[in-house]
Amino acid sequence: MRAWMMGQTYRAALSAGEVMAGSGLAEVVESRDPAFAPGDLVYAETGWQRLAVLPANRLQKVAPMAPLTHLLSVYGVAGLTAYLGLKECGRPKVGETVVVSAAAGAVGGLVGQIAKLWGCRTVGLAGGPAKCALLTSELGFDAAVDYKAYAGDMPGLYQALQEATGGGADVYFDNVGGEILDAVLFGMKPFGRVALCGAVSVYDGGVPYGVRGLGGMVSKRIAMRGFIVSDFYDQREAALAELKGWVESGQIKVREDVMEGLENLPAALIGLLAGDNVGKRLVRIA
Amino acid sequence: MRAWMMGQTYRAALSAGEVMAGSGLAEVVESRDPAFAPGDLVYAETGWQRLAVLPANRLQKVAPMAPLTHLLSVYGVAGLTAYLGLKECGRPKVGETVVVSAAAGAVGGLVGQIAKLWGCRTVGLAGGPAKCALLTSELGFDAAVDYKAYAGDMPGLYQALQEATGGGADVYFDNVGGEILDAVLFGMKPFGRVALCGAVSVYDGGVPYGVRGLGGMVSKRIAMRGFIVSDFYDQREAALAELKGWVESGQIKVREDVMEGLENLPAALIGLLAGDNVGKRLVRIA
Repeated sequence: MRAWMMGQTYRAALSAGEVMAGSGLAEVVESRDPAFAPGDLVYAETGWQRLAVLPANRLQKVAPMAPLTHLLSVYGVAGLTAYLGLKECGRPKVGETVVVSAAAGAVGGLVGQIAKLWGCRTVGLAGGPAKCALLTSELGFDAAVDYKAYAGDMPGLYQALQEATGGGADVYFDNVGGEILDAVLFGMKPFGRVALCGAVSVYDGGVPYGVRGLGGMVSKRIAMRGFIVSDFYDQREAALAELKGWVESGQIKVREDVMEGLENLPAALIGLLAGDNVGKRLVRIA
Repeated sequence: MRAWMMGQTYRAALSAGEVMAGSGLAEVVESRDPAFAPGDLVYAETGWQRLAVLPANRLQKVAPMAPLTHLLSVYGVAGLTAYLGLKECGRPKVGETVVVSAAAGAVGGLVGQIAKLWGCRTVGLAGGPAKCALLTSELGFDAAVDYKAYAGDMPGLYQALQEATGGGADVYFDNVGGEILDAVLFGMKPFGRVALCGAVSVYDGGVPYGVRGLGGMVSKRIAMRGFIVSDFYDQREAALAELKGWVESGQIKVREDVMEGLENLPAALIGLLAGDNVGKRLVRIA
């Protein structure tokens, strides 16, 4: 997904024989820069490879913690995206209704939990009854809607959302784009805000779905805004501190979906685009 | 259009035998309220009729001026919509490129002129060579694109826009929605703003056009916001004062498109939806 955001698709990267883009935690094994020593833990755009040669200014030293994986989920891009995107683009107020798609994914699951902690009613969209059950039973969502039960039935999905939200969303945190965005948009409440975080439904396809519900944005004064988490990194430390408090007190549950082996990276990404994961999908390669 | 915004279409209103919604300037001919006397000039939602019985609290007394029509164009909803929508939703900065659709219309022509006065490069979209020539020769636009020359050819329209803007819009003031919105959106610059003012392309049709370019809003951090001018009426007097200064000094040219006769109201509205007008379409009925 990050590779796509940077304007290359993984197909193009692979067919060109390039190193596929990807970020992760790595251990320094050799260094010509005095700021880094073997054994240091770093976060970097390593690419899909066991060993990477990178300039020191592309490495970010991180302190080890347990579990290490949290540095890539709730304390990484996923957690900050959920927290800062919801805060800055969603601007939820106490008592409002927040809808999030890909709600069983890394970002979505955190968005729902954070919105709840900020005093909102939360509705998650996920694919299949198992994920939906997880949302309400484990992640504290007030309601869940299984979008796969309404494949090709936009009016049905719209209706289910209106029921689950009790009359529409004030805030929609969109991870998927396409038909689901359209269905939520049609039912948004006046002065609603849409945070556009991703459009996973169109990353892997041909011609994107055309969203027809934009006309209603005028009369309902809807604001829709795309963002990338780094836009808000001036608030990074404050966000991490609040997330840490919630995780340590058990108010936020962190789901991670860890696969093993470099050879499974393609399957992991393809599965991610197909929605196989629950929580942050990671691949441990060493 | 106002009727549509209020959730009724003119077809439904007409077939139900109701008075069609519409606002205008009127003269008080009889009054039971001491605040109004025969001869007073008022602005009101009069409906499509020669005589209207209205409660005093729905009337707004206005001072006569010459020409009276300016009270319904540049000093009315159209002027305030252009000024306040551009300022609040477009947030143009000096040196940026502002694109506006329906640029030969009442709102669009003012948006282009105001954006120019605020130090922006301006590109107008209009239908046909005559309107496009008017934009650059009379209304001071830097460039004009004839969208009718690219009917059904979205890539062509996109390309023409990229050339006219020199690489995309920073601000798009959208009066039309649909395919034109899509073409502008595909080429928006990073951190661009879209002010959604209307969607005239979908008011009079069946299933609205589906906008496919929303996926790019994430990576380019585009913000899109629907508005209705009254949302910003706390700034009404300041906006009117600045508009008045520009009109009186000749820095803004006001185009009005006045038809005659109550019996021509349906034709006037149908023509408006078809884009026949240049400037503010008004109908003089008395």
